[in-house]
Amino acid sequence: MTRKQLIDEIKQKRSFLCVGLDTDISKIPKFLLDYEDPVFEFNKRIVEATADLCVAYKPNTAFYECRGVKGWQSLQRTLKIIPKTCLSIADAKRGDIGNTSDMYAKAFFSPNDSGFDFDALTIAPYMGEDSITPFLKYENKWAIVLALTSNKGSLDFQFLTDHDEMHLFEQVIRKVNNWGRPDNIMYVVGATRGEFFKDIRKHAPDHFLLVPGVGAQGGNLQEVCTYGLNKDCGLLVNATRSIIYASEGEDFAEKARAESLSLQKEMQEELLKAGIIS
Amino acid sequence: MTRKQLIDEIKQKRSFLCVGLDTDISKIPKFLLDYEDPVFEFNKRIVEATADLCVAYKPNTAFYECRGVKGWQSLQRTLKIIPKTCLSIADAKRGDIGNTSDMYAKAFFSPNDSGFDFDALTIAPYMGEDSITPFLKYENKWAIVLALTSNKGSLDFQFLTDHDEMHLFEQVIRKVNNWGRPDNIMYVVGATRGEFFKDIRKHAPDHFLLVPGVGAQGGNLQEVCTYGLNKDCGLLVNATRSIIYASEGEDFAEKARAESLSLQKEMQEELLKAGIIS
Repeated sequence: MTRKQLIDEIKQKRSFLCVGLDTDISKIPKFLLDYEDPVFEFNKRIVEATADLCVAYKPNTAFYECRGVKGWQSLQRTLKIIPKTCLSIADAKRGDIGNTSDMYAKAFFSPNDSGFDFDALTIAPYMGEDSITPFLKYENKWAIVLALTSNKGSLDFQFLTDHDEMHLFEQVIRKVNNWGRPDNIMYVVGATRGEFFKDIRKHAPDHFLLVPGVGAQGGNLQEVCTYGLNKDCGLLVNATRSIIYASEGEDFAEKARAESLSLQKEMQEELLKAGIIS
Repeated sequence: MTRKQLIDEIKQKRSFLCVGLDTDISKIPKFLLDYEDPVFEFNKRIVEATADLCVAYKPNTAFYECRGVKGWQSLQRTLKIIPKTCLSIADAKRGDIGNTSDMYAKAFFSPNDSGFDFDALTIAPYMGEDSITPFLKYENKWAIVLALTSNKGSLDFQFLTDHDEMHLFEQVIRKVNNWGRPDNIMYVVGATRGEFFKDIRKHAPDHFLLVPGVGAQGGNLQEVCTYGLNKDCGLLVNATRSIIYASEGEDFAEKARAESLSLQKEMQEELLKAGIIS
């Protein structure tokens, strides 16, 4: 998916919502367990109920890998029913030496090799340039690099400062900016770190930011928008648990839709306020 | 596998060799392509030819993921034929927020969930404490945390220094030391960075270090040993391409054995010199 297609989709749907598909088989409604692939059935209903309200879906691969080969089959089926008009993000946080990142790129971006054709992949930056550039060789695909994450552990290393008083997460953004462009790189910035969006926009005014942490993790959408929106929107705000587990009953898809609609309305307000849509 | 079992195995085999199973289907001898699972057949012959000369096997998951569901099946079959006396390491470089790392731990350490029962997993430290501690809940399993990697990109972030002139890779070791113990944590330190083993041993005198980069990547075994060996050995030195692709012909397993034997002999010399074996 190109940057232009993504922006058009945001404007048309009046939403920059990303729905996380971190589907835990122990948390889905029990009646689905009678199906051959309960996780896929759950995802299918979630996608059908929310596709007109969001612009991206983000399955976290850990929730599939933990079921081994069966889990990868569920992930493959799920990817096939994500509409092409939505950005499909494998939240896999991969990254390894160059020849190995080449293989990870095939794993997520090359359907002839792996059966997977995601639009985007999240990447951990610790191993540097050759761990990231292999993903940028694919046209209209996105590398979404971890900058400032939403969890408590983000305080351990991401805030370390060098002699210029520059945090590690800022240095990551500044370096990675040189390896790609705002049409093939995004950054992960947690919603729980609202006060840092201003700093991040200094280094990455044009890039899209993938923002987890709204909902169950407690991030504030309005604060994120105040400092994070740019002229093209530039935000994909993810919610997972608050949407997909909005109900434990048979009405889970309906409740997921209601929760998504409420977030979409808030996002529409922010887009109007910022003059991105009218 | 416990620390004691690993040390006993090293002393008995007079080797601290880890064989990397980064099996690329496009590089294996052509006659194997007639088998139903060529990657597994290749790995099986490599393991049979080297099991008495090494103490660990390390499949890099990228080389399996790039073949999708089929690749995960090859990995599962491969894990089953790695002898229990050898440490099995999933080189997967995972790491995510706590509730997600829980899932990755299941993916690699919990056979009832995923079908996989690796002894150890490599982990990227960027996301901090809650991304690492879920792996430490499993008894006799190992989290092998990236500290100083062997690739060119390691220069991008791992050498950044804070006010105390401490490199990021040193800070990673110092912090992670507090979260686990030398019997459930190891560190990845590339053989291409021989001169830094001295610094690393200051922070982690007792930990095992997993050392990639000998062989195709140009690291020097003798230098690694001079500064890296501790009283229990404390090193697992990995070689991949120089062993598994020692020959492109039908004699690939024989040649892999010859290459492993030559490394084992060098390692035996170092163990004798250091008085770890007699």
